[in-house]
Amino acid sequence: MNYSDLPGKVDHGDKIKPSPYIGNDLLISAGFIRPSGKGLISFLPLGMRVLNNLKRIIGEEMDNLGGMEISTPLVSPENLWEQSGRNRSSAMEIARFVDREGRSMLLSPTHEEAVTSLVREDIKSHKDLPLFVYQNQLKYRDEIRPRGYLIRSREFLMHDGYSFHRNFTELNNFFPKIFAAYERILKRCRIPYITSEADTGFMRGSRSYEFTLPHNGGKNLIIACPQCGYRANRAIARCEKTPYSGPLREMEEVPCDLCSPENSGEERRGMAFGLCKVFRSEHRYIMAIYRGDFTLSTEKLKKVTGSEELVPVGEEELRQLGIDPLSVSPFNLSTPCLIVVDDSVVDSSNLTMPSGAEGYCFSNVNFGRDFDAHKIGDIVKAGNSDRCRICGGSLEMIRGIELAHIFKLDDYYSTKLGLSFQDEDNRIKVPFMGSYGIGMGRLLFAAADANRDGKGLLWPAELAPFRYYLMGIGKSPSIKSRVYSLAEKLGNQVLVDDRKEGIGVKLRDCDMLGIPCRIIISNRYLEKGEVELYRRDDNSLRHVAYTDLLPLLREWEREQGLSL
Amino acid sequence: MNYSDLPGKVDHGDKIKPSPYIGNDLLISAGFIRPSGKGLISFLPLGMRVLNNLKRIIGEEMDNLGGMEISTPLVSPENLWEQSGRNRSSAMEIARFVDREGRSMLLSPTHEEAVTSLVREDIKSHKDLPLFVYQNQLKYRDEIRPRGYLIRSREFLMHDGYSFHRNFTELNNFFPKIFAAYERILKRCRIPYITSEADTGFMRGSRSYEFTLPHNGGKNLIIACPQCGYRANRAIARCEKTPYSGPLREMEEVPCDLCSPENSGEERRGMAFGLCKVFRSEHRYIMAIYRGDFTLSTEKLKKVTGSEELVPVGEEELRQLGIDPLSVSPFNLSTPCLIVVDDSVVDSSNLTMPSGAEGYCFSNVNFGRDFDAHKIGDIVKAGNSDRCRICGGSLEMIRGIELAHIFKLDDYYSTKLGLSFQDEDNRIKVPFMGSYGIGMGRLLFAAADANRDGKGLLWPAELAPFRYYLMGIGKSPSIKSRVYSLAEKLGNQVLVDDRKEGIGVKLRDCDMLGIPCRIIISNRYLEKGEVELYRRDDNSLRHVAYTDLLPLLREWEREQGLSL
Repeated sequence: MNYSDLPGKVDHGDKIKPSPYIGNDLLISAGFIRPSGKGLISFLPLGMRVLNNLKRIIGEEMDNLGGMEISTPLVSPENLWEQSGRNRSSAMEIARFVDREGRSMLLSPTHEEAVTSLVREDIKSHKDLPLFVYQNQLKYRDEIRPRGYLIRSREFLMHDGYSFHRNFTELNNFFPKIFAAYERILKRCRIPYITSEADTGFMRGSRSYEFTLPHNGGKNLIIACPQCGYRANRAIARCEKTPYSGPLREMEEVPCDLCSPENSGEERRGMAFGLCKVFRSEHRYIMAIYRGDFTLSTEKLKKVTGSEELVPVGEEELRQLGIDPLSVSPFNLSTPCLIVVDDSVVDSSNLTMPSGAEGYCFSNVNFGRDFDAHKIGDIVKAGNSDRCRICGGSLEMIRGIELAHIFKLDDYYSTKLGLSFQDEDNRIKVPFMGSYGIGMGRLLFAAADANRDGKGLLWPAELAPFRYYLMGIGKSPSIKSRVYSLAEKLGNQVLVDDRKEGIGVKLRDCDMLGIPCRIIISNRYLEKGEVELYRRDDNSLRHVAYTDLLPLLREWEREQGLSL
Repeated sequence: MNYSDLPGKVDHGDKIKPSPYIGNDLLISAGFIRPSGKGLISFLPLGMRVLNNLKRIIGEEMDNLGGMEISTPLVSPENLWEQSGRNRSSAMEIARFVDREGRSMLLSPTHEEAVTSLVREDIKSHKDLPLFVYQNQLKYRDEIRPRGYLIRSREFLMHDGYSFHRNFTELNNFFPKIFAAYERILKRCRIPYITSEADTGFMRGSRSYEFTLPHNGGKNLIIACPQCGYRANRAIARCEKTPYSGPLREMEEVPCDLCSPENSGEERRGMAFGLCKVFRSEHRYIMAIYRGDFTLSTEKLKKVTGSEELVPVGEEELRQLGIDPLSVSPFNLSTPCLIVVDDSVVDSSNLTMPSGAEGYCFSNVNFGRDFDAHKIGDIVKAGNSDRCRICGGSLEMIRGIELAHIFKLDDYYSTKLGLSFQDEDNRIKVPFMGSYGIGMGRLLFAAADANRDGKGLLWPAELAPFRYYLMGIGKSPSIKSRVYSLAEKLGNQVLVDDRKEGIGVKLRDCDMLGIPCRIIISNRYLEKGEVELYRRDDNSLRHVAYTDLLPLLREWEREQGLSL
């Protein structure tokens, strides 16, 4: 291909405002992608070629596990999502429209419903299991705040796989294979990653793991113990909560103003405070009680209470409920309210807690003796400098961008959508399901962000839009004929820089594009029958006899494990 | 791949109701595709493999013309379509939704706006032209009546190409290359087709050609002259209209009831009648006057009058306009109305026409002398047994399914969306544009419909989901080891029928799937060191030494021009 024919050339201007996402900036200014409106991205030919390489790599890894490619529609009748109940969730920011017959349709943000309903016809007997299918299909989320172009766009391409199993054990045995395949994919793309337990959230199911690119601009927070290797998303990460212990003392009312939630955790750190906060969920009021040396996690509180949404109750509403906003407390509560208590409160003795009257606390409050709860659970955040529950090591918080996520969905969708099969003893059973997703745009971003230097992009050979960049110096027919005869031999894998630009510009652009091998044909070396070969990855420059070039390049391709 | 692992097996039941679209019926019952709701189709692994082959073939042909793959989003802000004005058209049945910020978004039914707006950054100078890009992207049309699954679905995958040129001549020179590439694609898929001039319609532009699969269940009507080769879509096809000639006679009022539009054309054929019909367009009332021996074409009337929509005016409304519904006539018309006259009326003398009063006609009406028109044009349908304007041959009407359509869009979108470049003399010019589309689902349907016999599908080798179907007869380890060792050698191109079904069922299913080569390994022939090789395409059965098999298959692949 000729560089002059490409839409999307290297942008020498300063139009691109540098962002925290250098991979994006490079992909945009080198002409790989281009924003097409808020949360919408177009792929230019260079970007499309890398995207197709990513699809091929993922396809190879999935096919090795017996995966089969399918395609289910982006648009779904809403009634399919009524079966799973997920259409009522606001978490996925579903875009909907009403068709001309008045039926509500939606743009799928993910495809569990579509695929489960598709394979209902295929899974009748235990002989039809396991089944593993995947697709590369558009998704859409009506994001209010898309950000970082490829990182959180509204329309995005996803590689999504779905496996169906006879039982939990079979799913459990398949899961590590997917896990390993995802690791291989990221390694082939030379993308650094950390894996961690994650929050299943909107996807339901019992357990999930995510693959995160460590990145300061990321919104994903991973709690990690460098000592024992424990890693989990902050939404579910647990830490050691040393109980305040001691013999139970008599409860008494004391003047106090530290236990108002207005005061920062820092002021209370190390003090035996118990704090209370009230939320409104879809169904009811919830009062969360936790220790003042921790921070409440609404994500965990949602999980413990099975709530989709939790809205903090404001002062006005608190007063209407008969609660003093400056002394929220489980004591003398007159409104029906689900009381949820963090396990550290249960384990601690002699806490100081709001009394329900402004300016007063009860000291020496003890759970069980002085107040009780409807639910007990882990509802506080783990963070930097908290201690690891497993080994006692000091936890760290790593910021990053979620690239991929794999879920054990168990029988959630199978049950909701009526998927069942006959086992060997003719009993009707429900398949166990896993789902596995890689954001293709994010993967492209991560590959660019992780593979670059001061001069520009630096693609692994398997991902590169072209393996070879070729330019001639000089306008003589002998140069041009050599250039195009070599280009013909290199076929689809060469980009010929045929522009009438200066050599300096061309060399700079070649570096920017990140093509692994640069070949220059010039009069100076042609007289000696040589061409110049520069490898972008190891920065090596050599002069090679023209006749040796092709065998040398083929050898390099073999070394790199490239398909010929 | 093992057949038992596939979702979507051959359906032996009679669940599939036979339709006029046998290709669909076969694709559904053989497990290639599956309906997923009204106007929504899922692709199962077998169908996906054929679809990927179709994409590859098209990609090869487009790359040969210098095409480059890109991807623009399905979802578009409506304001982009306001620039082209196409958002106000009802022809494309656009599905819309309002995003959470209140902006109107639409699901693109086609991508001229998106691509023109994308390349605005790339086309600044004449050196940036020509430019040819393509994509395989979803489209959506909110069809009230989707039909024939792949033939008219609401969500569908399209291959769409867009070329931009310095001027009309350059576009004009590129067009035959696309035309030839499209013919090669259809030939490689062994799909019979007819090409014809077509209606540009919603796509605007000056001229278009379509590629139609002749099919009795199709809605596309092509008028063809077998004598001279003239072919055009009925929406624009012209025929010879022999004028009624003779010396102009005096107009007079006579009693008559034949000229009411209620009477069929047959009764009036050969008689010199002029008929009138009134329509309401977006802007005004339109009266069409045409000869009674022809049928009015509202499509042509739209084109002549530049209307998006034409609604026939009912009796009640006619009366309100002061027009007698039983004698619609241009005489004594009191309502402002655009009068459009078919050219055959202009050329004919002494027509009989409604007088405006029920039961009476004027005879010997002559255009120009007795009434006049705002516009003159071709507004009647050509049909079977009409005469060819070029050679006088007898026209035929061919029914079919539109598979592909290529458009000369000229400067419509460039102008509307502000695309311009500097020519060699530094003058600002507007690029000329072409757009080219192939419905991928329809192409799959056509390939299936055109390549089948009484036993099932019969894929051309290039399209086949697998090149080889392999089964062993007998359960001995020696059979199984031979089967799987051969399967390993044939790699990604073999489907192993590992089911515990009878041989008859397997042979029938193999025929149904349409895989070109069937290989059977059985004890009977294995003793002689032979295997059975059956070719589905030429129905040849032979026994081949096991050691000769692989070279033989590789030779067959080379013959078929398959990539290895």
